[in-house]
Amino acid sequence: MYLGKVIGSVVSTKKDDSMRGRKLLLLRPMLIDPEDPSRFKPGGNTIVAVDTLGAGEGELVMFAQGSSARQADGLKTMPVDAAIVGLVDTVSVQGKKTYEAKNG
Amino acid sequence: MYLGKVIGSVVSTKKDDSMRGRKLLLLRPMLIDPEDPSRFKPGGNTIVAVDTLGAGEGELVMFAQGSSARQADGLKTMPVDAAIVGLVDTVSVQGKKTYEAKNG
Amino acid sequence: MYLGKVIGSVVSTKKDDSMRGRKLLLLRPMLIDPEDPSRFKPGGNTIVAVDTLGAGEGELVMFAQGSSARQADGLKTMPVDAAIVGLVDTVSVQGKKTYEAKNG
Amino acid sequence: MYLGKVIGSVVSTKKDDSMRGRKLLLLRPMLIDPEDPSRFKPGGNTIVAVDTLGAGEGELVMFAQGSSARQADGLKTMPVDAAIVGLVDTVSVQGKKTYEAKNG
Amino acid sequence: MYLGKVIGSVVSTKKDDSMRGRKLLLLRPMLIDPEDPSRFKPGGNTIVAVDTLGAGEGELVMFAQGSSARQADGLKTMPVDAAIVGLVDTVSVQGKKTYEAKNG
Repeated sequence: MYLGKVIGSVVSTKKDDSMRGRKLLLLRPMLIDPEDPSRFKPGGNTIVAVDTLGAGEGELVMFAQGSSARQADGLKTMPVDAAIVGLVDTVSVQGKKTYEAKNG
Repeated sequence: MYLGKVIGSVVSTKKDDSMRGRKLLLLRPMLIDPEDPSRFKPGGNTIVAVDTLGAGEGELVMFAQGSSARQADGLKTMPVDAAIVGLVDTVSVQGKKTYEAKNG
Repeated sequence: MYLGKVIGSVVSTKKDDSMRGRKLLLLRPMLIDPEDPSRFKPGGNTIVAVDTLGAGEGELVMFAQGSSARQADGLKTMPVDAAIVGLVDTVSVQGKKTYEAKNG
Repeated sequence: MYLGKVIGSVVSTKKDDSMRGRKLLLLRPMLIDPEDPSRFKPGGNTIVAVDTLGAGEGELVMFAQGSSARQADGLKTMPVDAAIVGLVDTVSVQGKKTYEAKNG
Repeated sequence: MYLGKVIGSVVSTKKDDSMRGRKLLLLRPMLIDPEDPSRFKPGGNTIVAVDTLGAGEGELVMFAQGSSARQADGLKTMPVDAAIVGLVDTVSVQGKKTYEAKNG
């Protein structure tokens, strides 16, 4: 999975019937900066993911891609290749807490 | 999934029998510009996707890849790894509407 | 799927039994040049794909990857993650025909 | 699979029910340096993987991605696209041992 | 699939039970150099693949990734996302033989 920040949302009325009513959020992958492990380094891609957990804008989430995304609750038969599968409380790198949701 | 702009089309008469009659559109992935979230930044790749929703040239769409693409309506047994699964009405980033289909 | 040019072939006598007798072609992905949409820009990767349609050297083809490649005719149980699924007749970008097989 | 170094961990209380109680570790892919095969070159990405083997911080592991990750013990129906599938004892390149877990 | 050179091996005693006894080889993808098609250009990644064909160090092989790797003989239920599926005899590019196993 990857860590990602919710940066926005997408509305698509005309879509595959199976996706009706599903919230589509825009994610920016957040990588641990190789130069400074206490910081995130935003990835270049932006991904549209189905939200099954009620994530909000600015929140740090964990998302799965490919067929694994369809194992998320209720997505089995949808043409979905990215889904939010966790809201992140904390991230620790080399023994130090580098992110905490409350002070995220 | 990714956002993508329909930039063209492909005609292939000699193809896998299961794909007969299917429209093949050329997509340029459209990413949110990390420098300026109000703009799109075109991706480097161009992808051939099966269209199941009647997308038109210049339109902004949402597409799925890999085995998830085959979950789109009627594509289950086709050797297809990219399919358009939504026509995009609006995109919002950091609370601001950055794209709207009518004025797309 | 991607567009790709057939640039060569691979012979492998000692291979997974299920792949016996299958033609293995070398493909160079061909992307639409973001700077000049009337031209192709060769990709950096070169991919070995199973040919199920009789593609020839220099031909422009469409290929699928991952599990979708195994949906091509007869490849279901093979350890194959790339297959040619169409021979390309024409490519059109922004309303103009940029490639035609005869004058390819 | 890829080699990866455990650099940290992620806590996510609100996640897909099926993932409850699973340890989530942060991995930095470790590639063999093309310039100097006796050294590792850290990859740019950082991946969240489910740990099924009790890996510790700083350890070199082997991880699988995509649907293959879900073949790891007990992960079949989870929306998981990365799992640690081996703790690495030694790595040898061009006949020389370049890594050994005890003196890792 | 990709072409790859066997550059080394990995030993992992503590691994997913299903992978017990399987040989793990380190591969460097070998791409056709876009500047000079008679040469290979090593890829940046290094991949751990299960060997099912008895490949040796320095040998040029063909490997499959993702769920397709698990179609290789006996790997169906293993958390494996890369497997050697062919030992390469020859590679020809633009009508010329650019690699032959004996003089590889």
